[in-house]
Amino acid sequence: MKPILALTMGDVNGVGPEILAKVLTRPEVWTVCRPIVFGSAETLRETQGAVKRRPTPVRVNDVAEAQSDAEAVPVFDGGIEAPTRRPGALDAAAGRCAVEWFKLAVRCAMAQSVDGIVTCPLNKTGIHAAGYAYAGHTEILAETTASPDCRMGLFSDTMRIVHVSGHCALRDAIDKISAARVAASIRMGHDALIRLGAPARRIAVAGLNPHAGEDGAFGAEERDDILPAIEQCRREGIDCSGPHPADTVFLRMQAGAFDLTVAMYHDQGHIPLKLIAMDQGVNETLGIPIVRTSVDHGTAYDIAGKNVARDGSLWAAIRLAAAFAARERK
Amino acid sequence: MKPILALTMGDVNGVGPEILAKVLTRPEVWTVCRPIVFGSAETLRETQGAVKRRPTPVRVNDVAEAQSDAEAVPVFDGGIEAPTRRPGALDAAAGRCAVEWFKLAVRCAMAQSVDGIVTCPLNKTGIHAAGYAYAGHTEILAETTASPDCRMGLFSDTMRIVHVSGHCALRDAIDKISAARVAASIRMGHDALIRLGAPARRIAVAGLNPHAGEDGAFGAEERDDILPAIEQCRREGIDCSGPHPADTVFLRMQAGAFDLTVAMYHDQGHIPLKLIAMDQGVNETLGIPIVRTSVDHGTAYDIAGKNVARDGSLWAAIRLAAAFAARERK
Repeated sequence: MKPILALTMGDVNGVGPEILAKVLTRPEVWTVCRPIVFGSAETLRETQGAVKRRPTPVRVNDVAEAQSDAEAVPVFDGGIEAPTRRPGALDAAAGRCAVEWFKLAVRCAMAQSVDGIVTCPLNKTGIHAAGYAYAGHTEILAETTASPDCRMGLFSDTMRIVHVSGHCALRDAIDKISAARVAASIRMGHDALIRLGAPARRIAVAGLNPHAGEDGAFGAEERDDILPAIEQCRREGIDCSGPHPADTVFLRMQAGAFDLTVAMYHDQGHIPLKLIAMDQGVNETLGIPIVRTSVDHGTAYDIAGKNVARDGSLWAAIRLAAAFAARERK
Repeated sequence: MKPILALTMGDVNGVGPEILAKVLTRPEVWTVCRPIVFGSAETLRETQGAVKRRPTPVRVNDVAEAQSDAEAVPVFDGGIEAPTRRPGALDAAAGRCAVEWFKLAVRCAMAQSVDGIVTCPLNKTGIHAAGYAYAGHTEILAETTASPDCRMGLFSDTMRIVHVSGHCALRDAIDKISAARVAASIRMGHDALIRLGAPARRIAVAGLNPHAGEDGAFGAEERDDILPAIEQCRREGIDCSGPHPADTVFLRMQAGAFDLTVAMYHDQGHIPLKLIAMDQGVNETLGIPIVRTSVDHGTAYDIAGKNVARDGSLWAAIRLAAAFAARERK
């Protein structure tokens, strides 16, 4: 059986409904999963006006009974009604729906009634306006799955990157580097490769400082934190190496020398991936008990409602979630 | 008249002599400059054994009288004799020659008997073994040209990057960020574009933190240092903008939206440039009274003597120095 994937609509005033409507016109979606939209059937129907081919959105009351095919796509809202769509408008009600639909999807994933979650973007200011303190999906996941120590992965066809830290000031990112945290990141990357069935699992660990510190001349983190973490993981049987200079390690991964790279901070991984695979990057949360991937862009209020948003990242996120979920099922 | 460029040999046990021998077989070198090698004629002659076509190295005692053409290349050693070449061997005498030939070239450039310098790599451990405290070319330049506040530029055909700081720990690089230092970096980038005769001079300034700090949510450097520097430079008539998120600004430059980007630290600029233009990156020192470019790689002891080192970066460094120097001459 193909995995059941919850596709959350996110902020209805952002590009979420549009990219959902577009991706659902791809028959290939059903070849990798059985999709269920977590969001508003009415909003999806409205947004579909702009796209050519459409599966009919069918509002369902129970995820378990949902039938999904290219002609009809089930939509589950859990009784949470969307406000009228006003593309580009900041709306607390839209923020509330985005959070609650996502929480609903997490509960279903924890209960194994869905096999994975793929998220469309929500707007941070919008969810703050709705009274939540979350910075984004990750904080909601950390709370609802009781996983405070998760990691941001960013994967494309040729590059797989796990970040030691995520959305924080660069100064704080440096403070967060410790042997334990780097080792946990390596293990999560290794685990992700196993779950994806990767034939080789050669993990590169990037340095923090220029030239990976050049033997301690520029910073001590390589010697004090990163190298001990690599040595520990090697003792555990993980095929990892480094610390490698960050300005060539991604090129080497791109050329096939490594299967995954552990990056020391957000931009160290995001700069190379976006340069090589702008529209194909998929964000996934590692270190949580469920499968969750995400598009690698925001609500894009500036282009919402104009039907120009591309669904490439969402389609890549669906494929990756399906790959993770399919193997979990086995 | 074409500009006279001093090509310094660097560490004779590294790949310097080999890439020099190779690049001098390109007749195009003489279409952009009149080259003079600062180094050992004997070492160059020896190394040429491995290459097909060769201009004859002619040892000269006076730079001013040197005649350079594709049949004969002048070599100036200033009385500093090279040790026997032992590829890959760490040798204090090789370190001493690399430093002294380079200092000789700087003196000639300061006296305007050469119009620019292009450097082959030296080895930091080698120059320390010879008793110098310099970390590399940049520190020698800062001392000999009395320019403590210089910057590292990294240019390719489509990307031009000026770094706010160079070879130091990432933590120290963050400490170095100030409005004055960022503004000086923007001005040096602007000046470089003018000297190169760039028709447009749109300068992007990268942020330090993820998403350029996301309105102060992740770090205050964008608000406190980077934005005030941009505003100051705009008042001075420089076409600059930002702070832009670092994970997309280089892609935008690559696509033609900007002519130069100011990067906040070494790897922020080196990761994208090496990914896009590995062999074509040229290092140049900005904020000094002379023209100096450099290959963007080290001595590569592991491959020295095997005649496999590529001269692409050296050829790019010669072209860029010639472009800078030609306009200075006008």
